[in-house]
Amino acid sequence: MCNVTKKNFTECLSNIKDELKTATFVAIDSEFSGLLSDAEFKSSLFDSGDDRYLKLKSCLQQVIMMEVGLSIFKYDRDTHAFKASVYNFYVFPQPFGSIDARFLFQASSVQFLCLHGFDFNKVMFEGIPYLNVKQEIQIREEIQKGSLFRHLERNISMETERILQNECSKVAEWASTSIVGDDLLLKVYWLGEEPKLMNFILHQEIRRRFHNLWTYTAPEEQVRVVRITESQHKDLVKKGVSKDLEDSVIDALVGFSKIVKLLMEFKKPIVGHNLLLDLLILHNQFYLPLPKTYKEFKASIRLLFPQVYDTKFLSFELKRLLKKEDAWTVNTLQELYNYFKKGKGTCMVIYSPSINFTDDIDESSIKYHEAGWDSFVTGYCFVKIANMFAVYKENKFFQASRMLTCTEIFNAIKHMRGRVNLIRANISNLNLEGDDPLSTRPELLYVASRNFSCPIDLNKVTELFARYGSVDVKPYSSGSALVAVSTHGCAQDILRDFKNSKHLKVSSFNRFKHSPIAKAAVWTGVLAMTSLCSWLTYKHVLKK
Amino acid sequence: MCNVTKKNFTECLSNIKDELKTATFVAIDSEFSGLLSDAEFKSSLFDSGDDRYLKLKSCLQQVIMMEVGLSIFKYDRDTHAFKASVYNFYVFPQPFGSIDARFLFQASSVQFLCLHGFDFNKVMFEGIPYLNVKQEIQIREEIQKGSLFRHLERNISMETERILQNECSKVAEWASTSIVGDDLLLKVYWLGEEPKLMNFILHQEIRRRFHNLWTYTAPEEQVRVVRITESQHKDLVKKGVSKDLEDSVIDALVGFSKIVKLLMEFKKPIVGHNLLLDLLILHNQFYLPLPKTYKEFKASIRLLFPQVYDTKFLSFELKRLLKKEDAWTVNTLQELYNYFKKGKGTCMVIYSPSINFTDDIDESSIKYHEAGWDSFVTGYCFVKIANMFAVYKENKFFQASRMLTCTEIFNAIKHMRGRVNLIRANISNLNLEGDDPLSTRPELLYVASRNFSCPIDLNKVTELFARYGSVDVKPYSSGSALVAVSTHGCAQDILRDFKNSKHLKVSSFNRFKHSPIAKAAVWTGVLAMTSLCSWLTYKHVLKK
Repeated sequence: MCNVTKKNFTECLSNIKDELKTATFVAIDSEFSGLLSDAEFKSSLFDSGDDRYLKLKSCLQQVIMMEVGLSIFKYDRDTHAFKASVYNFYVFPQPFGSIDARFLFQASSVQFLCLHGFDFNKVMFEGIPYLNVKQEIQIREEIQKGSLFRHLERNISMETERILQNECSKVAEWASTSIVGDDLLLKVYWLGEEPKLMNFILHQEIRRRFHNLWTYTAPEEQVRVVRITESQHKDLVKKGVSKDLEDSVIDALVGFSKIVKLLMEFKKPIVGHNLLLDLLILHNQFYLPLPKTYKEFKASIRLLFPQVYDTKFLSFELKRLLKKEDAWTVNTLQELYNYFKKGKGTCMVIYSPSINFTDDIDESSIKYHEAGWDSFVTGYCFVKIANMFAVYKENKFFQASRMLTCTEIFNAIKHMRGRVNLIRANISNLNLEGDDPLSTRPELLYVASRNFSCPIDLNKVTELFARYGSVDVKPYSSGSALVAVSTHGCAQDILRDFKNSKHLKVSSFNRFKHSPIAKAAVWTGVLAMTSLCSWLTYKHVLKK
Repeated sequence: MCNVTKKNFTECLSNIKDELKTATFVAIDSEFSGLLSDAEFKSSLFDSGDDRYLKLKSCLQQVIMMEVGLSIFKYDRDTHAFKASVYNFYVFPQPFGSIDARFLFQASSVQFLCLHGFDFNKVMFEGIPYLNVKQEIQIREEIQKGSLFRHLERNISMETERILQNECSKVAEWASTSIVGDDLLLKVYWLGEEPKLMNFILHQEIRRRFHNLWTYTAPEEQVRVVRITESQHKDLVKKGVSKDLEDSVIDALVGFSKIVKLLMEFKKPIVGHNLLLDLLILHNQFYLPLPKTYKEFKASIRLLFPQVYDTKFLSFELKRLLKKEDAWTVNTLQELYNYFKKGKGTCMVIYSPSINFTDDIDESSIKYHEAGWDSFVTGYCFVKIANMFAVYKENKFFQASRMLTCTEIFNAIKHMRGRVNLIRANISNLNLEGDDPLSTRPELLYVASRNFSCPIDLNKVTELFARYGSVDVKPYSSGSALVAVSTHGCAQDILRDFKNSKHLKVSSFNRFKHSPIAKAAVWTGVLAMTSLCSWLTYKHVLKK
């Protein structure tokens, strides 16, 4: 496995590009700075796809990925094997110009990362920078307009300012004795700061201060200063920042987003485990701010990644085809990997492709929740699951009689492309490539207090019903509430047990019957009737 | 210097308490997770104290201190010396119950901390927890109501859940063979999590599951399980969570806030360098959420810290009394320390108290922007500055003729208590103990375009005027702007240089003359006069 930081990113990039070009698929995973816990953002069984997208959008805008795992899987027909190159990227925003990212950390997320030995120093000190496309355009404009320099002043530390001034003094001294055509090479040690960015400021400073000097980029992060005439200087200033300088800055800033651009370019299948959050954050952080609506998001993510597979969704679908005793218990990554690697799954996957690392990985040193390793495990499970679907497709049975081709394997799961697992909502998965599936959850339950004068206590209802399974409760009217229940069994149990409850009236929710307006209408009807009766009675009395 | 993390906090606490009790004063410093950069929150020369408070309040609510430096200075009359105990605390929020802090990191702040070798892992892995008073009350209520457990479930990792279930199995096995009166001691290794908090969950789980067992806290983070009768269990459940268990949880969570409570209790003078932000964040993080208004904040901070001194403010005041050649250049902490320690200041501070560390500090290994060291330097400069004021008070001259007493030294600066430096505002400092001083900034400038058809370009005006010094520009009407200027010299230079400008009309701002309403009134007047004239002319014509 290769750990990638800003120190070795450029080195690794061309390798990664070559591997992506010929890859069969790519598995991803990531670690975030925070998640969601506020009540208003809490996942609920009432949520539709739209609801959930809007909730996630509003609370993920300030969350960032700090570790991204990428496993590039390539199939080799001769050996019927996949080889995986596994990368673990550390990413962190670089302040520059008007861009100075502010992002949320959440105490519980930090605690989770700590428990899994996450290295925060590595991220903060060595994280690869990134810009999404909107930010890239913004910085390009600032460079071209020359407005960047105003913003930048704020972000230079006193120490860096001193180094900058020191270099300028050196240049001034040299300039006083040089003649047109002379040049000077500067190689500056910029403390911990990114040399390309700091050199850019040095270029700007020298060009602005010395009207008979110009600067050029030189190999190995050097700056070449050349003595020219004042009229040449004037001409050069008019032309604005030269393209190579602009590109050099942008190149340093775009950083990890280049990987996302490559993924977009090569359009390989992207595989993740329960990857909805990953997709949203990745879109926002490296591609474009999240679109306003769920529909627009679906369109946008299809442009970015037209082929998405979710192993969590696939594993749920596969489990339905398996006998209970043949399947795994919970659909976590670790459980699935153990199932296929050394558990019952080993006998289910005879003839399936083998999966190896490109380089050596010591499996005893790996840890779950490290994005690189998790991405590999995701890809591993993906191949095994897809193979099982393909075997089943052949003979409606999980006993392979022959080796299946890679195409056969992928064809067996193609219809589940774009389907992404959704936790605790009114549907169990989304469809990124079209309309979401219809809900298969039980009907909502309607709960009312039998005692009219006593308003319903939502917490109590939640506590009472939670014993039966996952439930979410929301108020409906002052005396009633709606309950979303995860399974039909759970709904039936509740209906049965509360049939004769003295305190609560529980029934399947009927939009018309239980509507407060409909109720009001009925009551109005009753009142109208009553009034009419009274009036008739009155008239009758009068007549008497 | 003593680095304090959650590992040694309890150990250090009683020492710190003793030192605080007998301290002469306490110097503080801190490092934050972020600052402010958004345009709407930017400091401006237009800002009054109220304006600034509201700006800071709204953007500091999600910023946290991660490192707090505390230097406890004690004067010794016999040696005429101060001894300082220096502590560097790492603090980090602990998620628990409904409390799961979300806080902002800012890329440029992280970069700044990285350049100064900040250890993020130390903070995140070993940071001391804290609760402000409001959160403490909230958690106490949740414990008493028993509602805590519902919230907690969300925050337990799968690994921890497994440990918990394992312990419960152990207890179940033991319970099956035990008789009333038997007990069992559990000592659990909770991975990286806080044992007191996790033990609390274990207590709750056992009490809930086993109706013939009860739990007690035992020394060394152990849990004592005792076999009791079911009726005893019922009685104990009725009583609710026992006080010792509640206190143990609160004690673990309150953590660093205990230090703040001690500071509040002993009411020693608190010294900081440019400490407005420190005060605001500290108030919010460890005491109470920031009050709505500036006035309420002043009242609240006086309850917390009735005696506050700002060495930045003091150094500005002192500099005014010094000849330019005898003073320091810039009022940064490092510059001031060097001035007093080895610069010109050394001959200014003859007879001043000496200042030593309680324990050895290798001055070659220290680093600025580490909160502990910075707090020491602050206290050091405070003593030296106060002494110079005291010498000056004696003879209006900076040559001490005798050793001054500690009381004389402190009396010389007492009138500057509560005065806190304010950067880039319409006043240069705040007064926490009363009304803010009146502004001594020059009058605002009024800038209008000489060409009526051409709206004023605020960026251009800023650029033009910034050459003269610090300025802030805000729109006044479509064709005019107001400019706040930092110094009278700068204002005069601008007025002089733009007197004959072809494009801009610049003058001192006159609230009446330049008011758009007044202008409209004048124009209305002119129009009225014109109409009258026209009418008279018309009448005159008619008459003819």
